Amino acid sequence: MASNSFGEIFRYTTFGESHGPEIGCVIDGVPPGIKLTPEDIQHDLNKRKPGSSKFVTQRKEKDIVRISSGVFEGKTTGTPIALLIKNEDQKSKDYQDIKDIYRPSHADYTYQEKYGIRDYRGGGRSSARETAMRVAAGAVAKKVLSKIIGKKIEIIGSVIQLGMHKIDKKKWNKNNINKNHFFCGDKTSVPIWENYLTDIRKKGLSCGAIIEIIAKNVPIGLGDPIYQKLDANIASALMSINAVKGVEIGDGFSVVDFTGETNADEIRIDKNKNVKFLSNHAGGILGGISSGQDIISRFVVKPTSSILHARKTITKNKKETNIITKGRHDPCVGIRAVPVGEAMIAIVLADHALQHIAITRNLKNER
Amino acid sequence: MASNSFGEIFRYTTFGESHGPEIGCVIDGVPPGIKLTPEDIQHDLNKRKPGSSKFVTQRKEKDIVRISSGVFEGKTTGTPIALLIKNEDQKSKDYQDIKDIYRPSHADYTYQEKYGIRDYRGGGRSSARETAMRVAAGAVAKKVLSKIIGKKIEIIGSVIQLGMHKIDKKKWNKNNINKNHFFCGDKTSVPIWENYLTDIRKKGLSCGAIIEIIAKNVPIGLGDPIYQKLDANIASALMSINAVKGVEIGDGFSVVDFTGETNADEIRIDKNKNVKFLSNHAGGILGGISSGQDIISRFVVKPTSSILHARKTITKNKKETNIITKGRHDPCVGIRAVPVGEAMIAIVLADHALQHIAITRNLKNER
Amino acid sequence: MASNSFGEIFRYTTFGESHGPEIGCVIDGVPPGIKLTPEDIQHDLNKRKPGSSKFVTQRKEKDIVRISSGVFEGKTTGTPIALLIKNEDQKSKDYQDIKDIYRPSHADYTYQEKYGIRDYRGGGRSSARETAMRVAAGAVAKKVLSKIIGKKIEIIGSVIQLGMHKIDKKKWNKNNINKNHFFCGDKTSVPIWENYLTDIRKKGLSCGAIIEIIAKNVPIGLGDPIYQKLDANIASALMSINAVKGVEIGDGFSVVDFTGETNADEIRIDKNKNVKFLSNHAGGILGGISSGQDIISRFVVKPTSSILHARKTITKNKKETNIITKGRHDPCVGIRAVPVGEAMIAIVLADHALQHIAITRNLKNER
Amino acid sequence: MASNSFGEIFRYTTFGESHGPEIGCVIDGVPPGIKLTPEDIQHDLNKRKPGSSKFVTQRKEKDIVRISSGVFEGKTTGTPIALLIKNEDQKSKDYQDIKDIYRPSHADYTYQEKYGIRDYRGGGRSSARETAMRVAAGAVAKKVLSKIIGKKIEIIGSVIQLGMHKIDKKKWNKNNINKNHFFCGDKTSVPIWENYLTDIRKKGLSCGAIIEIIAKNVPIGLGDPIYQKLDANIASALMSINAVKGVEIGDGFSVVDFTGETNADEIRIDKNKNVKFLSNHAGGILGGISSGQDIISRFVVKPTSSILHARKTITKNKKETNIITKGRHDPCVGIRAVPVGEAMIAIVLADHALQHIAITRNLKNER
Repeated sequence: MASNSFGEIFRYTTFGESHGPEIGCVIDGVPPGIKLTPEDIQHDLNKRKPGSSKFVTQRKEKDIVRISSGVFEGKTTGTPIALLIKNEDQKSKDYQDIKDIYRPSHADYTYQEKYGIRDYRGGGRSSARETAMRVAAGAVAKKVLSKIIGKKIEIIGSVIQLGMHKIDKKKWNKNNINKNHFFCGDKTSVPIWENYLTDIRKKGLSCGAIIEIIAKNVPIGLGDPIYQKLDANIASALMSINAVKGVEIGDGFSVVDFTGETNADEIRIDKNKNVKFLSNHAGGILGGISSGQDIISRFVVKPTSSILHARKTITKNKKETNIITKGRHDPCVGIRAVPVGEAMIAIVLADHALQHIAITRNLKNER
Repeated sequence: MASNSFGEIFRYTTFGESHGPEIGCVIDGVPPGIKLTPEDIQHDLNKRKPGSSKFVTQRKEKDIVRISSGVFEGKTTGTPIALLIKNEDQKSKDYQDIKDIYRPSHADYTYQEKYGIRDYRGGGRSSARETAMRVAAGAVAKKVLSKIIGKKIEIIGSVIQLGMHKIDKKKWNKNNINKNHFFCGDKTSVPIWENYLTDIRKKGLSCGAIIEIIAKNVPIGLGDPIYQKLDANIASALMSINAVKGVEIGDGFSVVDFTGETNADEIRIDKNKNVKFLSNHAGGILGGISSGQDIISRFVVKPTSSILHARKTITKNKKETNIITKGRHDPCVGIRAVPVGEAMIAIVLADHALQHIAITRNLKNER
Repeated sequence: MASNSFGEIFRYTTFGESHGPEIGCVIDGVPPGIKLTPEDIQHDLNKRKPGSSKFVTQRKEKDIVRISSGVFEGKTTGTPIALLIKNEDQKSKDYQDIKDIYRPSHADYTYQEKYGIRDYRGGGRSSARETAMRVAAGAVAKKVLSKIIGKKIEIIGSVIQLGMHKIDKKKWNKNNINKNHFFCGDKTSVPIWENYLTDIRKKGLSCGAIIEIIAKNVPIGLGDPIYQKLDANIASALMSINAVKGVEIGDGFSVVDFTGETNADEIRIDKNKNVKFLSNHAGGILGGISSGQDIISRFVVKPTSSILHARKTITKNKKETNIITKGRHDPCVGIRAVPVGEAMIAIVLADHALQHIAITRNLKNER
Repeated sequence: MASNSFGEIFRYTTFGESHGPEIGCVIDGVPPGIKLTPEDIQHDLNKRKPGSSKFVTQRKEKDIVRISSGVFEGKTTGTPIALLIKNEDQKSKDYQDIKDIYRPSHADYTYQEKYGIRDYRGGGRSSARETAMRVAAGAVAKKVLSKIIGKKIEIIGSVIQLGMHKIDKKKWNKNNINKNHFFCGDKTSVPIWENYLTDIRKKGLSCGAIIEIIAKNVPIGLGDPIYQKLDANIASALMSINAVKGVEIGDGFSVVDFTGETNADEIRIDKNKNVKFLSNHAGGILGGISSGQDIISRFVVKPTSSILHARKTITKNKKETNIITKGRHDPCVGIRAVPVGEAMIAIVLADHALQHIAITRNLKNER
């Protein structure tokens, strides 16, 4: 239930359809006294904004956020923060032809079957437009994190595979990520991806992507066994993003042919007398709790389902037909999923940081 | 918060440590009037029970479940169902030597850092022993499902990769699964896996596994966008199982190099005028809602961290040392994870079936 | 946590401050296919609207509601319904003089102490303005109720005591309620109350009120023991309304000097072979579950704390001072609490109706 | 949903029926490192225990609590604490004659109608026996409170009215409370109550009671507007206790004929420069947040419904009949409700204290 909300203490609720007047979210559980301006949020929204290059949808949305409540004289007050973004560039007529036809691999069929009614314009509620509010909530989560944790948590998302093209991990550098249209950390991959995606786009096709999110400087102790494990919450957070079909933590599926010996993250004490792990196969989470290492997660985004090639499908009245999905679409929705993934990780971490404080604060000295 | 509970309407809470007097769970939200006997639950528990072959831990636990409440004259009453299992074969002395040493890749370090105290005996709360209660709750979930859904939902789990050895998918047959010690659906893989795991065990090592769960006959419409999507809940459910590092739905990570064309599950009408998909790349979930196709999920279990080879680690007092983890361990915990995975899928489906009824029941006729 | 949300399946979240640009709410869990127009909601909002008579605050707010999402072509779609109301008649300057002074019996002091910051304009988040969104959500709840329950549930709120003046219960008639400024069901009390409240208002004073809410035609079986009992949820719902200090169910506090004999609601079978209770001391709830009788609840609203008489108080800097609270205030906030109380009862009933369906639907035939 | 659980961070779940093998609860969200022994809990359980005087039920239950999990070497570990109490003195045969007859003012009828099945023995789940687990959870909550709040919170419950007999408030002294069978703070009322209740009991009747709970030394700032206000949570907590029909905070219903002037709790600065209220009409809560004053709440318990006088009722098959409820019953269940009410207040306060820490901890210095 409460299926449009996410989080326990830091908890946000989104609303709005692709072609309604606006989209919005309400964030509950933000501590008071945190400086928050629209610009703090706009910065992240601009990373996700449509129309920013020829490799993403040409829908024109400024995605200007407005803070409606919860901030007074530039600071959070502990009351719910509502954020609103107007929808500006809806072209509802584009969708008249899909009113009664189910686009394969879209949510049209299941929404119609579940609810008996759907707002078909732009996918309605199932549109990736909803992810703008995740990015907005994530920007607030980052402010919360930097406030309640002394050292700055860094959350770095990048595409590590576009279609069949993997990056060369040795050449990955976080400084490259924002210098190309693909959030790609390996600059040698950029021209290859450009050619590849240009070709895909011209052909009216689409491709998938794998995104990796690294969170640095996460304190030890975040995560609540058994069912609110940090990794379980990350899995839920990332899998809830549109078009995601898989989630990994640390070495993920590749651990299957490791042994307990090769998979062990051995531990030493460094010269500053700090705990030091010799590897990070676990992705920074042990028993559902952060270990102080980098939190590493990955997710795969399927190729955009809207393509310019005819696919077999049926109408609402159960007649066979074909469909070509026109309109403005991302040839690879995985690219714009990068800031969304970063936001979801920020939200999970902020929520667990608050939960951790609740349980451990005053007892710390007694240990 | 409420980190030891899972589910919204069908909601269970587990308690108990590996070496405490018992483990248990309380299940809320079970509809009344469902026949339920201890045998219904015991059947599933026996699949997970330790000591059943040389390929799993030699800890001897009968795992006999007792129904303490919520059932009257053989039927559920709508009140909470408490299930209890005594711990019988604890050997706490086995663990004295790990009292002050953190086993690498275990939860020892993070529990100690988070809570400042831990029950180190057998891993305490972080022990996979907790999963017995998941299996017990899952057995109840299956009873709920068969009651509220006309046709029988079938949930079939099997190991599809053990260490580096994948099954031959063409030879997979569900009837093979319970005829070997590995829940393996491909009988040609069984002797290979036997040799492999015997070798691993003799060497005092361990290996990982990939488990696939197929749920058949799931009705259309289960799942609640946006944050309680069926796949997001499955991801959370499976990732919360001990030692799991990755989760996939449908074709999972392999969709990355598909195109929108090859990834589309085209739709037709069959001769009985039913909707028929021509493929199932999506794993039976579109927009977070079940499509009526098989729900297909997979998860990877890391190699057991307890091995007979020395690994570098530290003590509670931050001194460097080495550790060999003796005691009774599974050479591949992934095997016994099969009934646990099945149980989690049953629980997610039962919960969503109840949620779906809440939202749609009386409106159905009006569509 | 999630302290700005109420309900489990039918769950709404409010946001907005008295002097922000707007107030709003997001309602999750509304079944699809229900006809819903702004007029459905406006009707109830107009009952609560300020400025409607000389006996309520003179703040001028049209309180025009806008449906932002979740409704398509006039029907609910199962996605979250966002409702927005602009704030129009803020006079922030009225509040400059209370910026640094705590008004006694207001939330100024506790908000400042809890959060270290507060939006003092009009009481900010603690303003009764938030209750407009309760009324809006309640209007939607009523639509849900009439859809999922065959017979029409009637929810009738009225003031039964204004200051020291009680109504004559024998003269109470629901048809009188909307014919006076006090939601008074006893027309003989109306002139008495007019004189009394006019006097109170002229003196710059205020008074309290007791409101009774009767819900008719509620089906048997709503409510979930133990902690989501119908009466426990009603108590929480009503006590959460601004200025409420007490809640009763059925005969409430007066049962203290009953005996088990005089308090028993005896049961008979009427000539139509229906179950018939001979009295309703219990207020329609037994063991936390509705019995099919009228659900009767009452709550008391304290006198408005904002008065034109000087009261001793302190400043934010802990200096002693006096305060006279100017601005536009209701001489008896209890009057406008009537539609708010009705809304809260509608919300609790709608939520429990959905919960009840989830648990009992398909099992009904087997009983 | 989750109707057998209460609380957000400090969250407990109860299970068990009156005549099952045991009752129990699982408490989640208890901070680690708190000393906890069975004796800590037993002390409070003994206050509620049946059979302690002729004025309460003669059912003989030792109510010995066993800690099953969550405590290691005498301290809490942050994992769920399960508590179990065996049922010993069940006399199921007492209940054979009510198997098919609904006792008026009991939950028999509504449980049967809601669930289609009920464990009629001793009222099954609706028995006040469940409140033993509230008292047990409350004892743990008190330990949490004393740990996380420097100064000791004192929670004092007492009966202030028994049937028609009110105490003389001026003679109330907390030291009297545990010196009589009625938890009465006014020793001049004790002999009156003894005579009265002896008479009631001999007549096979029962009476109601009003209980007042005062919580002292509660820090400022507990409570979360809007829907998790401290008073709303208290109302829910108290109203969920069996047989409660009304709840008040502070001056409660009597504020109806106050004015804003007489109801104002004026504020001064005392000689130690602390904030001092000149009265406490509000009962220590303003805007849903604790003000630092005593938290004062009251609730009314209806007369025990089980009496030795025939009452008209019906059978399960809808035939008219009469019933005399034999068995062992409290002539005034309100008496044993005192420790239950204290426990619920402790639980609400502990939960809010943890929530408050989550939101405000690290920001405090910046204010």
